Amino acid sequence: MRKILIIGIGAGDPDYMTVQAIKALNRVDVVFIPDKGEEKAGLRQLRTEICERFIEQPGYRTVDLAVPQRAAAGSDYRGSVDDWHAKLAEAYEALFAAELAEGECGGLLVWGDPSLYDSTIRIIKRIRARGFALDYEVIPGISSVQALAAKHRVTLNRIGEPVLVTTGRRLVEGAPNGLDSVVMLDGDQAFAKIPPDDLDIFWGAYLGTSDEILMAGKLAEVRDEIARARAQARAEKGWIMDTYLLRKSEPGI
Amino acid sequence: MRKILIIGIGAGDPDYMTVQAIKALNRVDVVFIPDKGEEKAGLRQLRTEICERFIEQPGYRTVDLAVPQRAAAGSDYRGSVDDWHAKLAEAYEALFAAELAEGECGGLLVWGDPSLYDSTIRIIKRIRARGFALDYEVIPGISSVQALAAKHRVTLNRIGEPVLVTTGRRLVEGAPNGLDSVVMLDGDQAFAKIPPDDLDIFWGAYLGTSDEILMAGKLAEVRDEIARARAQARAEKGWIMDTYLLRKSEPGI
Repeated sequence: MRKILIIGIGAGDPDYMTVQAIKALNRVDVVFIPDKGEEKAGLRQLRTEICERFIEQPGYRTVDLAVPQRAAAGSDYRGSVDDWHAKLAEAYEALFAAELAEGECGGLLVWGDPSLYDSTIRIIKRIRARGFALDYEVIPGISSVQALAAKHRVTLNRIGEPVLVTTGRRLVEGAPNGLDSVVMLDGDQAFAKIPPDDLDIFWGAYLGTSDEILMAGKLAEVRDEIARARAQARAEKGWIMDTYLLRKSEPGI
Repeated sequence: MRKILIIGIGAGDPDYMTVQAIKALNRVDVVFIPDKGEEKAGLRQLRTEICERFIEQPGYRTVDLAVPQRAAAGSDYRGSVDDWHAKLAEAYEALFAAELAEGECGGLLVWGDPSLYDSTIRIIKRIRARGFALDYEVIPGISSVQALAAKHRVTLNRIGEPVLVTTGRRLVEGAPNGLDSVVMLDGDQAFAKIPPDDLDIFWGAYLGTSDEILMAGKLAEVRDEIARARAQARAEKGWIMDTYLLRKSEPGI
């Protein structure tokens, strides 16, 4: 049977690679490199750097995978994602059938952790559900949320309190009462659109890379400054990847 | 100045160590080994194994750190934790002053990720707030939640949905509506006490170790079986560490 390793490579810094991920990379015959368009040149280079630095067996092959564009979500977010995943599953299956011999092992490198806001696991499940024989393993990686907390040297949770990982869209619809929140996948600066009272923000962009920017403080005091820094960095580089933690203010923490 | 590295060593499997954590281990002059009592012999051995396997510089010292017992929480959970942290900060500060020379670097090894339900970062902040000069860095690690998701080969979030990381205590007080939940720090099998309708459970114990147990299914169908397996494993080994993901049922995922 063919086998796919879904390998979490961490968020930005190649040193976030785990020993398990390095061992997994060295088991694969083929590394599939999804080209999402959205993945920026800097990130693509980081991925290549990871392969060159950590893969010690010389014989591996690299295969590009053109990822179909996702239709604009419109009113039916889940439906549009579902259609997109169906197309992705078709494209992946065709590629696996063509590029991976029986008994060979393919690697899919995932930014951060495959279990958080990434569709690779779902796509592999779809391919299997379509009847294509395929075994797979998942290797966890350091997510951008964890990189953010480590760089700011803060905990994600307050003592005994929960942590919510959510999207900017949902946060604007209504911040959950009494929760410490982590916002990811936010292309639209939701932090600037919610009541800032008693909230601290810990913000980071290009985490783990040499372009990393960190800013933190009381949301009311720093949100404009963060919005400016974000706009400027985006204009200069042409793209941005950022995430942030909003947390009830806690003296001295 | 003295420096402390708070190093996330991952959840159970030494292969969860990141390259960054390995480099950090090799920078320390002293490894402080907290003895919490609650840390079981098997875990203590894993920690020793990590030091022996990954530290290549021969000169490092190891210092045990007796951790004071935490008083039973009673009605004031936060207050009792606060008292306990104050005692821990005193004990850590005395030890750093005695065992770490100016300019030396100490390492604190944290299970999983220091940013999730661990008090080490808070204790270091307390010591600094008391006026003890100390620099520190935080190195993220693979948390048990991520290990759980990877071993079950599932995502933590459903498409576009948030993820809540919380405690068993809070879950029993009232499961949040419409949320996919991860429960940690649950010594009391909260999963057996909530309405099981339309929920799947992904449960794991001793994750990443050779004793790992994984069970999953519809909560209504498997919760008794999980409770039995948990009780039996706990009786046989004398201790248990487990975590689980509760998620709205999703066909085929």
